[in-house]
Amino acid sequence: MTDTPTLQFWFEFGSNYSYLSVMRIEALAKAAGVRVQWRPFLLGPIFKELGWSTSPFVLQKEKGEYAWKDVARQARKYGLPFRRPSVFPRVALLPLRVAVLGAGSDWMVPFCERVMSQNWRDDLEINEEANVLAALDGLVDDPHAVIAAALSDENKRRLRENTEEARARGIFGAPSFFVGDELFWGNDRLEDALAFARQSQAS
Amino acid sequence: MTDTPTLQFWFEFGSNYSYLSVMRIEALAKAAGVRVQWRPFLLGPIFKELGWSTSPFVLQKEKGEYAWKDVARQARKYGLPFRRPSVFPRVALLPLRVAVLGAGSDWMVPFCERVMSQNWRDDLEINEEANVLAALDGLVDDPHAVIAAALSDENKRRLRENTEEARARGIFGAPSFFVGDELFWGNDRLEDALAFARQSQAS
Repeated sequence: MTDTPTLQFWFEFGSNYSYLSVMRIEALAKAAGVRVQWRPFLLGPIFKELGWSTSPFVLQKEKGEYAWKDVARQARKYGLPFRRPSVFPRVALLPLRVAVLGAGSDWMVPFCERVMSQNWRDDLEINEEANVLAALDGLVDDPHAVIAAALSDENKRRLRENTEEARARGIFGAPSFFVGDELFWGNDRLEDALAFARQSQAS
Repeated sequence: MTDTPTLQFWFEFGSNYSYLSVMRIEALAKAAGVRVQWRPFLLGPIFKELGWSTSPFVLQKEKGEYAWKDVARQARKYGLPFRRPSVFPRVALLPLRVAVLGAGSDWMVPFCERVMSQNWRDDLEINEEANVLAALDGLVDDPHAVIAAALSDENKRRLRENTEEARARGIFGAPSFFVGDELFWGNDRLEDALAFARQSQAS
C-alpha cells in the first residue's frame, strides 16, 4: 500500500472529551503522517438507543463530577483553555449540520475549533445562529448562505446518516476513532489510534 | 517538604484495568521517585451503592465489549500477557483479604502481581484457596498461616474499612489513585498521577 493512512474522527460539539481531541488532532495527525476524516454526528440519539436519557456524565453523578476535574486537568496538560460550561450537554444541532456541510473543505476544521472554543472556553450557546455565524466569519464568503445550505433537507439527512452509521458501527460515545474496522474510544486513545493507522499502512 | 512523595493506589483483583496498573505501577513509581501505598478494596459494594448490580462493563454491553478489545490492546502495548477470562467480574474476596493483611510487607506486591496473572493470563478462579496458596508459595514461610490470619475478624474488618474509606473519598471505579485529596481514575491516569505526586512534593 502507498496510500496515506487515514483515521476517521467521530465527534460531537456537546461532548467534553471531544473538545480535547478537536483541538489536538490536526497537529498530531500531521506529525504522524495520517490523514484525518472528520465525521460529525449526534450523540443524543445514540445515548437514547443505549437506554440513556442524557449524557452518562449527568446520569452518573460521581463519575460526572470527576470528569469535570479530569477534563480541566487534561486541558491544562495540553495547554488548552477550559471553563466548565453553565449548560451540559449543550445542543449542537446547527453547528453539527454546518460541520457536515463543510466536510472536506478548507474551512471545516477551523470552524469546528471555533465552535469548541465557544462551548468550552467562552460558555456560549453554540446552537444559536448568531454564534454559528461568528464561528464562520472570515472562513467563508457568505456565512448566511452556508447556514441556509446546512438547513437543506439533503444536508440534514447527511447528519442523520452519519449518526446512523456511527450507531451501526458500534460507536457508543465521543470522541471515537476508526482505523479500518478498529474502534478506539476516547481522547485518551487518540495517540494509539494514530500509531495504529501508521502501522496498518506500513504492513 | 523533604518526604518522598506518596501515591495511594486503590485496586481490585476483579477489575480488568486494575490488572494493567498492578503490573506497571512499581516500575513507573520507582522511576518517578514516588512511594506507592497499595490499598486493596472491594468494588462490588461500591457499585451496589451507586445503583449498579454488577460491573458497568457487564451492564453496558457495547462499552463492555469494547473494553475487552481495549484492555487486550493496552496489554499488548505494555508488553503484558492477557487472555479474556471466562468469568467476569471474578469474586476476589479471599485474595483481597490476604493483600490487606500483607500491606506494607515485602511479599504483598509480588503476591498481588501473581493473583492478577492468575485472573488475566491463566483464567483461574482467584477466590479458590488452592490458587491463593499457590500465589503465596515461596513468598511467605507458611501460606496456610497467612490465610488463617487473613480470615481473622480483625483483618476482615480492615478490608471493609478500606472499602468504606474508598466510598467516602468518592472512588467509583478501579484502579483509582490519590495524591493527597486529588483523585485520578483509571489506568490511563497512572502516569499523570505520578507526575502530580512529584510536582506536589517539589512545591
